[in-house]
Amino acid sequence: MPMTDAERLATHRACTRFLTGHGPRNARRELTALAAEAAEDDRGDWYGEGETLAAFERDVATLLGKPAAVFMPSGTMAQQIALRVWSDRRGGAPVAFHPTSHLELHEQRGYAFLHALRARLVGDRQRLIRRSDLDALAEPIAALLLELPQREIGGQLPTWDELVQEAEWARAHGVALHLDGARLWETQPWFARPLAEIAAPFDSVYVSFYKILGGVAGAALAGPADFIAEARVWQRRHGGNLVTLYPFVLSARAGLRDRLGRIEAYVARAGAVARCLTAIPGVRVVPDPPQVNMMHVVLPGDSEVLLDESARIAQDERVSLFTWLRASEVPGFSTFELTVGDGAMALDDALLARLFRRVVGAGDA
Amino acid sequence: MPMTDAERLATHRACTRFLTGHGPRNARRELTALAAEAAEDDRGDWYGEGETLAAFERDVATLLGKPAAVFMPSGTMAQQIALRVWSDRRGGAPVAFHPTSHLELHEQRGYAFLHALRARLVGDRQRLIRRSDLDALAEPIAALLLELPQREIGGQLPTWDELVQEAEWARAHGVALHLDGARLWETQPWFARPLAEIAAPFDSVYVSFYKILGGVAGAALAGPADFIAEARVWQRRHGGNLVTLYPFVLSARAGLRDRLGRIEAYVARAGAVARCLTAIPGVRVVPDPPQVNMMHVVLPGDSEVLLDESARIAQDERVSLFTWLRASEVPGFSTFELTVGDGAMALDDALLARLFRRVVGAGDA
Repeated sequence: MPMTDAERLATHRACTRFLTGHGPRNARRELTALAAEAAEDDRGDWYGEGETLAAFERDVATLLGKPAAVFMPSGTMAQQIALRVWSDRRGGAPVAFHPTSHLELHEQRGYAFLHALRARLVGDRQRLIRRSDLDALAEPIAALLLELPQREIGGQLPTWDELVQEAEWARAHGVALHLDGARLWETQPWFARPLAEIAAPFDSVYVSFYKILGGVAGAALAGPADFIAEARVWQRRHGGNLVTLYPFVLSARAGLRDRLGRIEAYVARAGAVARCLTAIPGVRVVPDPPQVNMMHVVLPGDSEVLLDESARIAQDERVSLFTWLRASEVPGFSTFELTVGDGAMALDDALLARLFRRVVGAGDA
Repeated sequence: MPMTDAERLATHRACTRFLTGHGPRNARRELTALAAEAAEDDRGDWYGEGETLAAFERDVATLLGKPAAVFMPSGTMAQQIALRVWSDRRGGAPVAFHPTSHLELHEQRGYAFLHALRARLVGDRQRLIRRSDLDALAEPIAALLLELPQREIGGQLPTWDELVQEAEWARAHGVALHLDGARLWETQPWFARPLAEIAAPFDSVYVSFYKILGGVAGAALAGPADFIAEARVWQRRHGGNLVTLYPFVLSARAGLRDRLGRIEAYVARAGAVARCLTAIPGVRVVPDPPQVNMMHVVLPGDSEVLLDESARIAQDERVSLFTWLRASEVPGFSTFELTVGDGAMALDDALLARLFRRVVGAGDA
């Protein structure tokens, strides 16, 4: 008998191990750790000012090799602001990004509704933007946003040479180059360069602190000092200059300190997980091999049947593999996004192979 | 010898008692209290969804007598969104508010730069909006924002009858009435009605959780269910639909539970503080008597001299009276905003009289 959504959810909630990310948040544990992170006399920042916040913003700017940085509540805010500032400086010309950009898919088109920005979508939604896509642009644009890695296609990355060629196009055309670095931390093993060097071709960079770094929430925007000063004005307009952001700031600082060094292991583990999964008949990953610590896992079978089996495994084994699936455009396949963090680090290949063979009904190996 | 700004700041930082508000925040203490506030298995809200958040939003809606409420990171965001929704529903007509509204003074005119809203300022900046100001409006407006209490003129309030007459004007003209209730909690003793009754004439209400309630940050917008659903879309566009807001939510819940019952005592204490201060030659308060737990304190003398004396008192007595002054339009007078909270509750009249006599050089009583 198929399970209801609530029944499935309950089985996953009762799990003790989680394949994706770092497993669920626990508010009490997180707040207790943050209290220990705060200096004894820390009064928190106040409308964007304060020693802890200012020092953290300087550290982030340095890490990214930019003159200045500003902490913001969200990447949605940071990126709309970045594109607005670049567009305003170029007479309100359109901005360009990939069809699967967060701005296009997940922000209720705030860029248009709030900022009256016009977006030129560039490239094919199933692959990265290429230099040839840029060469084909026939109208002027103010800014080009590149997302490293491109999340919605499984975390794909260009080669360093491809990236340099795209940056050359932007410079040659007077186009501001903005980096959507929501998952920038994860690209370091692929490019085998320091983060500041990866960010160097870009005029502005957004990074996130709550995804792989495990912070509560929060983002930063980095770039030239005058650009950041202008972004702070827009942050106030957005309602993002909060009376204080200190819980986010403390958690971001802790995440950067404690988790940045684990990225290489996460990426290596993602490769091993991909090999383990693709050895199961009918299971594929995109991209194969993974380029960062994430991938799309493509499963053969009906999504309702697969979700039921995942819930039953959660019930039997207290391991949560996946809680949602996206129907594929190829009938008979479903996909979920797998991010390797502390969760997958604690699950060995033999267990994963056994559980996923059960998911897809492949029988024992 | 005059002190530098840094020297003044240092003396105030070392104080143990504070006249205004609840005194400075301590991040570690606040986070420790929040950890205890979280249920053992609370995973926090996730992009606006979660049991703790949903229950709190329902409680706030009930308290304000509205069908629905949404938690937001800031009032700046909440109020721009409210006015945008009401304006969109009336063909983009202008919105109206007091010349000292937060939207006009403290938000870098986000209403215009982000929402392309046009604002019609109503009334004189030194007094409340009156029904006669509304009757004099010669062009259609979409929404009228009333701020209760009017913060920038010392927290003034209309009588209940005046408020009802303004609400009648709005209804008669098909104008949406929005309540800027940043300090709504403090109006209850003045109106001597339940909060839901005070909010009843308004179509939408914004309240804040971090001012007198002492939360970390955060606000709520309450109103009809369809209005709140629309506001949630705009919250995402603003970048205010964060991955989680749970530290803000927990602190807001605690503040509402623990501090709402103290408001009456704060307001009573504000009256006593005003009587104590106005007994000193040359010292005035606006309004006199105070109508809520706040007032402007007008001091005779040069502002640099007054700030130095406040800093010396901080040094000698470890009591922080005021750290900034606004020059008055009347030469020879300076003003600061005094909010009565836990700080002033712990300072007796004799001490205040002695310290403020010293501030203004009045000698001993």
